[in-house]
Amino acid sequence: MSKKIKKIGVLTSGGDSPGMNAAIRSVVRTCAFHEIECIGVYRGFEGLIEGDFKILSARSVNNIIHSGGTMLKSARSKEFMTKEGRQKAFLQLKSVGIDALVLIGGDGTFTGGLVFNEEFNFPIIGIPGTIDNDIFGTNYTLGFDTALNTVVEVIDKIRDTASSHKRLFFVEVMGRDVGHIALNAGVGAGAEEILIPEEDLGLDRLLESLRRSKKSGKSSSIVVVAEGDKIGKNVFELKDYVEENMEEYDVRVSVLGHMQRGGSPSCFDRVLASRMGVKAVETLLEGKSNYMVGILDNKIELTPLDKAVKGKTEINKELLRVSDIMTT
Amino acid sequence: MSKKIKKIGVLTSGGDSPGMNAAIRSVVRTCAFHEIECIGVYRGFEGLIEGDFKILSARSVNNIIHSGGTMLKSARSKEFMTKEGRQKAFLQLKSVGIDALVLIGGDGTFTGGLVFNEEFNFPIIGIPGTIDNDIFGTNYTLGFDTALNTVVEVIDKIRDTASSHKRLFFVEVMGRDVGHIALNAGVGAGAEEILIPEEDLGLDRLLESLRRSKKSGKSSSIVVVAEGDKIGKNVFELKDYVEENMEEYDVRVSVLGHMQRGGSPSCFDRVLASRMGVKAVETLLEGKSNYMVGILDNKIELTPLDKAVKGKTEINKELLRVSDIMTT
Amino acid sequence: MSKKIKKIGVLTSGGDSPGMNAAIRSVVRTCAFHEIECIGVYRGFEGLIEGDFKILSARSVNNIIHSGGTMLKSARSKEFMTKEGRQKAFLQLKSVGIDALVLIGGDGTFTGGLVFNEEFNFPIIGIPGTIDNDIFGTNYTLGFDTALNTVVEVIDKIRDTASSHKRLFFVEVMGRDVGHIALNAGVGAGAEEILIPEEDLGLDRLLESLRRSKKSGKSSSIVVVAEGDKIGKNVFELKDYVEENMEEYDVRVSVLGHMQRGGSPSCFDRVLASRMGVKAVETLLEGKSNYMVGILDNKIELTPLDKAVKGKTEINKELLRVSDIMTT
Amino acid sequence: MSKKIKKIGVLTSGGDSPGMNAAIRSVVRTCAFHEIECIGVYRGFEGLIEGDFKILSARSVNNIIHSGGTMLKSARSKEFMTKEGRQKAFLQLKSVGIDALVLIGGDGTFTGGLVFNEEFNFPIIGIPGTIDNDIFGTNYTLGFDTALNTVVEVIDKIRDTASSHKRLFFVEVMGRDVGHIALNAGVGAGAEEILIPEEDLGLDRLLESLRRSKKSGKSSSIVVVAEGDKIGKNVFELKDYVEENMEEYDVRVSVLGHMQRGGSPSCFDRVLASRMGVKAVETLLEGKSNYMVGILDNKIELTPLDKAVKGKTEINKELLRVSDIMTT
Repeated sequence: MSKKIKKIGVLTSGGDSPGMNAAIRSVVRTCAFHEIECIGVYRGFEGLIEGDFKILSARSVNNIIHSGGTMLKSARSKEFMTKEGRQKAFLQLKSVGIDALVLIGGDGTFTGGLVFNEEFNFPIIGIPGTIDNDIFGTNYTLGFDTALNTVVEVIDKIRDTASSHKRLFFVEVMGRDVGHIALNAGVGAGAEEILIPEEDLGLDRLLESLRRSKKSGKSSSIVVVAEGDKIGKNVFELKDYVEENMEEYDVRVSVLGHMQRGGSPSCFDRVLASRMGVKAVETLLEGKSNYMVGILDNKIELTPLDKAVKGKTEINKELLRVSDIMTT
Repeated sequence: MSKKIKKIGVLTSGGDSPGMNAAIRSVVRTCAFHEIECIGVYRGFEGLIEGDFKILSARSVNNIIHSGGTMLKSARSKEFMTKEGRQKAFLQLKSVGIDALVLIGGDGTFTGGLVFNEEFNFPIIGIPGTIDNDIFGTNYTLGFDTALNTVVEVIDKIRDTASSHKRLFFVEVMGRDVGHIALNAGVGAGAEEILIPEEDLGLDRLLESLRRSKKSGKSSSIVVVAEGDKIGKNVFELKDYVEENMEEYDVRVSVLGHMQRGGSPSCFDRVLASRMGVKAVETLLEGKSNYMVGILDNKIELTPLDKAVKGKTEINKELLRVSDIMTT
Repeated sequence: MSKKIKKIGVLTSGGDSPGMNAAIRSVVRTCAFHEIECIGVYRGFEGLIEGDFKILSARSVNNIIHSGGTMLKSARSKEFMTKEGRQKAFLQLKSVGIDALVLIGGDGTFTGGLVFNEEFNFPIIGIPGTIDNDIFGTNYTLGFDTALNTVVEVIDKIRDTASSHKRLFFVEVMGRDVGHIALNAGVGAGAEEILIPEEDLGLDRLLESLRRSKKSGKSSSIVVVAEGDKIGKNVFELKDYVEENMEEYDVRVSVLGHMQRGGSPSCFDRVLASRMGVKAVETLLEGKSNYMVGILDNKIELTPLDKAVKGKTEINKELLRVSDIMTT
Repeated sequence: MSKKIKKIGVLTSGGDSPGMNAAIRSVVRTCAFHEIECIGVYRGFEGLIEGDFKILSARSVNNIIHSGGTMLKSARSKEFMTKEGRQKAFLQLKSVGIDALVLIGGDGTFTGGLVFNEEFNFPIIGIPGTIDNDIFGTNYTLGFDTALNTVVEVIDKIRDTASSHKRLFFVEVMGRDVGHIALNAGVGAGAEEILIPEEDLGLDRLLESLRRSKKSGKSSSIVVVAEGDKIGKNVFELKDYVEENMEEYDVRVSVLGHMQRGGSPSCFDRVLASRMGVKAVETLLEGKSNYMVGILDNKIELTPLDKAVKGKTEINKELLRVSDIMTT
């Protein structure tokens, strides 16, 4: 059906996540394995427009599987949102003979890719790289597992000082629209309460829960809050609110921020990245396009990219219940 | 069908693994949530025979979710392998009114539990706690994910010195009968070759692979070897063999050993333990027995214990292939 | 000169720091070694007033050398700042026969101890436990080394994402009055600029420095800011200021906060704590009082407590210069 | 006195250690700061003989401060031990105009450097890079602090499993001639006994100590053994001996090996490396030669290289005593 693919480009776009380098390495080595050329596109769609390309040999990705960030850099590109920008990008690809692209990123990256494919009939495959785990069509996005470990390790440290002083901490973690990091890391860190965008606990129930926790003899409490929680107050306002309404509490706030995106990927993310990279390249070589590679029920599977973009991930109800039981 | 359960015992047996404490905590808190009593049985079946029991309140498991090892201690018991031993154990359980047991451990633990159940019709549920991931009926055993991270972090350190000196390292990891740790950690650590019990690579192919790796410009190599590999030489003999047959190589050996069993559990293992503990207790409360709680396709599921014991886990063929491609 | 000491109390007070548990363990075991009794005083001076005491045997401090926080808890006590409060505390000590106290904490703890000693002629020895390294009479306070590693590991993660996106990060670390954490962690993390209370770099020089860094080809920058820096803007205002004056920059802020106080102590802090605990107890046994144990030029030395309280630590000028040279 | 230095070479030699990259970075940036050229010599003296040189700009050492190993690689060179080899090396240096060398390594490296200096009057300065801390003239060698943290973290993991099973572990750490790692990490990890080359505890006292530890109620024991201990048995023979003579014990062995050399350097080692690199370059620029840069009493100081090579470091007697008291 399609002409034979001889040269594959790979780029990372949007927020970086741990495991992106392992995925790049896998794409590069899978190309080498199939004896086709691999071109690194630097700075995402911006570098695509500018032709910021570099040939990547199998050896050029030595010693990167363990490193955080992305060796190809990432960027957000306004120009790629214009027809002219995408036209330039297409010409750049043609000029060096790139036949297909592997896009590592999130929703925004995939949406850009779909438009580009539609306009130029250019083969693309997506790899979900984001710590938020908010992509439909995969149980795990690249970097999610590592981010959970980062959060849990930091909260373990905070708990040391919290329990030495009998304090309450509000810990804000990433997640504007989804609470996957908050829920999983909250359970993993033994949080007393978890506030996520998918649920509005309500201020009254929060206070009630904190009072119950205190009464039960717990000497300290951690409340994990997703950025996009629905309780109607940011984490600093929450502190004030609780201090006003529960005077016995010494309340502190910790906003974890960008450290959650960095760090050496976990074994899970490295293995996942290696598997996804192989599948992405081989899917292109089979003449397919517009799919996202994901892991579903422990198997590497394809999901149509438009479904991945439109679909919503759901919060795990069973885990919500586990979280409640654990605070007994 | 069965009489109502009012008191549940919990024990850990066999080799310890990270996440056992998180599972104990979950069992204890789920009991508290359902307002039934939870009794900790110390030192596995040995403590069962001796009546080494302690009431565990919800607060008694504060601040253990992050700790390695098992607060209930573990032991291997020869006496429990005798009818007399099991009779004593049954009397101990009766004397304090324990109605059912949650057994956290591996194959040996479950086999002991099944015999005990058969003899005394005593309700039991198993939670798979072992770093080896060698239990049928679950995609992940408790501690496997943490052990992978431990191994990968150590190999990252070894690679620093390997690549500074252009050396070859044989790194032995746990796995007498199965190669799950070796295969996953090998891919995660970017190993050049992985030797597992499920496959006999053969000495010739090993040498060939090392020669190819060297020729391709790699300055150092890591070969991950499972304890039970089938190549017919232990890791020190392998070193000698390679040095004799590939004189240009400076070869070193590192046997990781018991550190793989310890350490603070990863977020994955903490969450898994929390989910499994809830399911184990609630399964007993539903009047069921002789099941193992596992995670299959991201859902917590039950598998009949005898199937879990008899079944074999299979090495992931797709991951074996990914491993090959990555060494391109 | 003084009567023989038979029972020593130990407490932690003020902000907790990694290594406090190792110091408590050392005090307890040194007492056991000299066959005198050791009493743990819980919640600092507050517990002293309330008689919150517990006998600590050598075994009661098993398995705490590696744990963060303080098993004796800490608290700030307003009542101990009154004569009445201290009177109560003295009576509590007399009632159980405690002859002397080891105080683990910072300036405030030592000041309280000195007043108490003056009023009741009660023997005390201080161990400097604070991450800030702001105590005269010791090159290292307990917890400082661990906090530096924590900060540097977090900035390593932030740098992953910073360099993937060519961003500038302002990272705020602890240090209201002193810049030791900022200076050391800044050099250790390869920061482009370090803002400390001891120096006012000035906004103009900051901008100049950032421009030079950018021009030199650095793709990302980290500026480490001590809480108490003298530049006249907090870290969020700095972000706004730089974004207004250097439009090409995407600037982010990360406030590390309380995680800096927690975590498993480094080997350095564990060894230091062990050495200090021995010296503290043996100094009391020699009949001395009102000293602080410190490490000066790699030797454990005593400094009069009033000197420790009044003296100021100075920022290391040579390290400031090293910091400048490193940003070349 | 000497002609002005315009071009400085830097090499790493012998066993690698964490912090070597931070030291290279510091040497390179200090050269840039003083506007002289810096040349990286790859693979130690071997690369010196072969002229394996590369110009290192200030930017070429971006993002290496946190990485283990050495970007310049290391090697042992037999040829440099011959007059002919050194003659070749001298010609290589002359041919590219290198005026002076910074040698990062240990005793062997410095000895080679001294011979080279004597023969060719070539200015050299040494930086002590080895994890063993066995160099006279510095309280800390580069990498020692990091290695201690690595060892202590691994023993923390081993202790998890040891205490779950009531086992005795012999843990072998590096140190053929000196016991600094064993003594410090042993105290830091709470070891029950520490066997070092500087002392022969004797097998009887070892057994006695283990029996006392068991009797005192400790459920597990860790014995840290330096490679070069004087007890007359290797670590596996020790296991057999103890099992024969103390039947109640389940004994295991763990040989930590090369992982101790790798890993991201601690903040302490990064700062130390940065300070040493500045001093090394500036000492050469002052026209001096044949010194080693060290840290003595918290100040960066120079020691004549021949003294550094001949001198012996002594085991800290006070710390030995602390170690004894801690096992009470």
